[in-house]
Amino acid sequence: MSIVVQKFGGTSVATPERIAHVAQRIVNRKRAGDQVVAVVSAMGKTTDSLIELARSVNPNPPAREMDTLLSTGEMVSMYVVAMAVNALGEEAISLSGRQIGLVTDAAHGNASIREIHADRITKALSEGRIVIVAGFQGIDGAGDITTLGRGGSDTTAVAIAAGINADVCEIYTDVNGVYTADPRIVPLAQKIDVISYEEMLEMAAAGAGVLHKRCVEFARNFGVVIHCRSSFNDEPGTLVKKMSEDMEKAIVSGVAHDMSEARVTIHDLPDNTGIAANVFGAMADAHLAVDMIIQNSSREGCADISFTTPKADLARTREVIERVAHELGASNVEILKQVAKVSIVGAGMKVNSGVAAKMFRTLANAGISITMISTSDIRTSVVIPADRAEEAVRVLHTAFGLDGSAVFEETQLSAEELEAKAKKGR
Amino acid sequence: MSIVVQKFGGTSVATPERIAHVAQRIVNRKRAGDQVVAVVSAMGKTTDSLIELARSVNPNPPAREMDTLLSTGEMVSMYVVAMAVNALGEEAISLSGRQIGLVTDAAHGNASIREIHADRITKALSEGRIVIVAGFQGIDGAGDITTLGRGGSDTTAVAIAAGINADVCEIYTDVNGVYTADPRIVPLAQKIDVISYEEMLEMAAAGAGVLHKRCVEFARNFGVVIHCRSSFNDEPGTLVKKMSEDMEKAIVSGVAHDMSEARVTIHDLPDNTGIAANVFGAMADAHLAVDMIIQNSSREGCADISFTTPKADLARTREVIERVAHELGASNVEILKQVAKVSIVGAGMKVNSGVAAKMFRTLANAGISITMISTSDIRTSVVIPADRAEEAVRVLHTAFGLDGSAVFEETQLSAEELEAKAKKGR
Repeated sequence: MSIVVQKFGGTSVATPERIAHVAQRIVNRKRAGDQVVAVVSAMGKTTDSLIELARSVNPNPPAREMDTLLSTGEMVSMYVVAMAVNALGEEAISLSGRQIGLVTDAAHGNASIREIHADRITKALSEGRIVIVAGFQGIDGAGDITTLGRGGSDTTAVAIAAGINADVCEIYTDVNGVYTADPRIVPLAQKIDVISYEEMLEMAAAGAGVLHKRCVEFARNFGVVIHCRSSFNDEPGTLVKKMSEDMEKAIVSGVAHDMSEARVTIHDLPDNTGIAANVFGAMADAHLAVDMIIQNSSREGCADISFTTPKADLARTREVIERVAHELGASNVEILKQVAKVSIVGAGMKVNSGVAAKMFRTLANAGISITMISTSDIRTSVVIPADRAEEAVRVLHTAFGLDGSAVFEETQLSAEELEAKAKKGR
Repeated sequence: MSIVVQKFGGTSVATPERIAHVAQRIVNRKRAGDQVVAVVSAMGKTTDSLIELARSVNPNPPAREMDTLLSTGEMVSMYVVAMAVNALGEEAISLSGRQIGLVTDAAHGNASIREIHADRITKALSEGRIVIVAGFQGIDGAGDITTLGRGGSDTTAVAIAAGINADVCEIYTDVNGVYTADPRIVPLAQKIDVISYEEMLEMAAAGAGVLHKRCVEFARNFGVVIHCRSSFNDEPGTLVKKMSEDMEKAIVSGVAHDMSEARVTIHDLPDNTGIAANVFGAMADAHLAVDMIIQNSSREGCADISFTTPKADLARTREVIERVAHELGASNVEILKQVAKVSIVGAGMKVNSGVAAKMFRTLANAGISITMISTSDIRTSVVIPADRAEEAVRVLHTAFGLDGSAVFEETQLSAEELEAKAKKGR
């Protein structure tokens, strides 16, 4: 008997039919002899609709009230999934963020989990019940409802898995798992059977959107095994877990790309000490995110600073950067939206030199120019023109030996074998 | 300064625009110097959608879980109305059924209010806040959420008005008040300025749908003055209150009609003692409602029993009655759906004889046949063919002197004058 946390996102519970399907999956797992906790998101686009509704009556809704409003979305999902489980003849108990004692800080709209009191969950499980939990929500020290922000329901599921010492935390999405590259771009992309936390974090940061960085970090910190799989079939997906050394054989595990960022360059900054601190201090003060950064000397006594930043916040970024550029005496600011970030990720890079060089050479051979480079010990990212992104992903995928033999190659391991492997590896 | 409870139904909060309008109305009242509690229903058709959603995943959702699910509808309304009030610069506090200590029995789906602990409301009002309350919901002795069934939000509002000793409970709907007849049928129908609880109860029972019988009964029991008015304009509506003798001058206050019932006749029941008890005992056991009842002898030793009952439950009624008829040895059961109930209501009937006779004569002169009659001391109802209902309402409206001089005659009293009158009359 295993203890399993299953998390179902908004797409998986978007309609009564899909809820019935999710309920059947939960019940099947229970009847196979496991103890099951299911964490659910709000149905479909409920959260977006509630945000829109609130803003249409109050352009600046108070964050505390907004969280209370948004929390109803997951409550509805939870009640309905519990009813659907009951309809199948199993006893379900639904528990809100408050009821599972998921305590967060008071950062309404983007709260961080501080602790979880899993007693009610473990008690209900030991009584033979299926536990349905509302994701994305908690309470702060004052007892007010908070929400966890992006990736919040995934993080709820991982936190519960840690709290009840679950064998695996299954995150259900609309894709089959984590791929060596986006299958829409690379037809020969393969599903990755097992990946380390570190690689998954780099993949997430590099734009592979299946799992949110935050929930992977949480899982790594508490040693929770994540099984990322599809809610539309029974195929095993991708296990994210601590890897033993012998499993780190692939030099490059995947190629990720991200079209959501723009490149900002400040030209001819007088090269005084601390200019980078001034520029990025101003960005931080405005709560604007910065990804890759490079600084290089241009004409004498001056420097250029380039960085990438989400296009979504570009209007505010432009405002901040033009002000800072003026204050620091720079010549001009250049903003380029037609850029892509392409990254290769692999734990094997640590011990294999020449991986980055091979990446640059592959792109050069394809005639693709690189305008920025950034590296970590298991990732190398480059910024290239947006219209060459798909080609870049394909040539890199081939160059690093990731192409499979079939469009969607089936894994050779069953879900049980994958999990057995996972348990052994913990 | 008055203490005012305002109740806004689903139609009044169906869209962000209407919510903004409701918020403005609440704030205007506060700024005029009053203490305001607003009770809100779920937005538009939310409750129906939630019921449909639940049933689509579980044909027999547990009543306790259903109530918890449904209660989210009013919660969303409450949070959003509170945000809209905050946007106008006033401080609103939202309180759920649980938070106002509205305790009910455990009859999930149709709970009755047992008590209300209004301390949090009165405290918030004394601090200068506007209180927004989720209607339709309470908690039972075990702390589980209950819902109040049909008319539940109106009843919540009246219960709060009783609990905080409010000067008036304003019930906002999409019509201007209570009319002497349905204005869609009788163009000369007039809005009634003031009506007694008893007359309003009879009007509600006779099919005038503006106020639910239950909330009027509650108001009568606790002496709460109801002001039934439109959320789409500022016109005064209809005051429902205890009437002093001198105000009971109108013989007939209104003509109501109800097309929602069918007539069921059991022919040739062997006339033993207790046949009516057997028939209506069976209906009661099946929780089926019965309105008008007549019993008369037919051929020797036998009786016919006729009654009216909601068409909505006709399939189950047919099942019960055909079984009972068979058991009791009746000849056959006749069910007639094309019938209408038309009623005249007026406190003046008590002291004026001949009112019923005038009603029957008026209908006879119009060639309208009557198949059932029932009376109370302030109401006379008849069952007639459905296709003559509108004509019957019109000729009775004229015969009892209710026709006004204009299609929608404006009242001569302002809202303030009406309320002053109301306070005086308490």
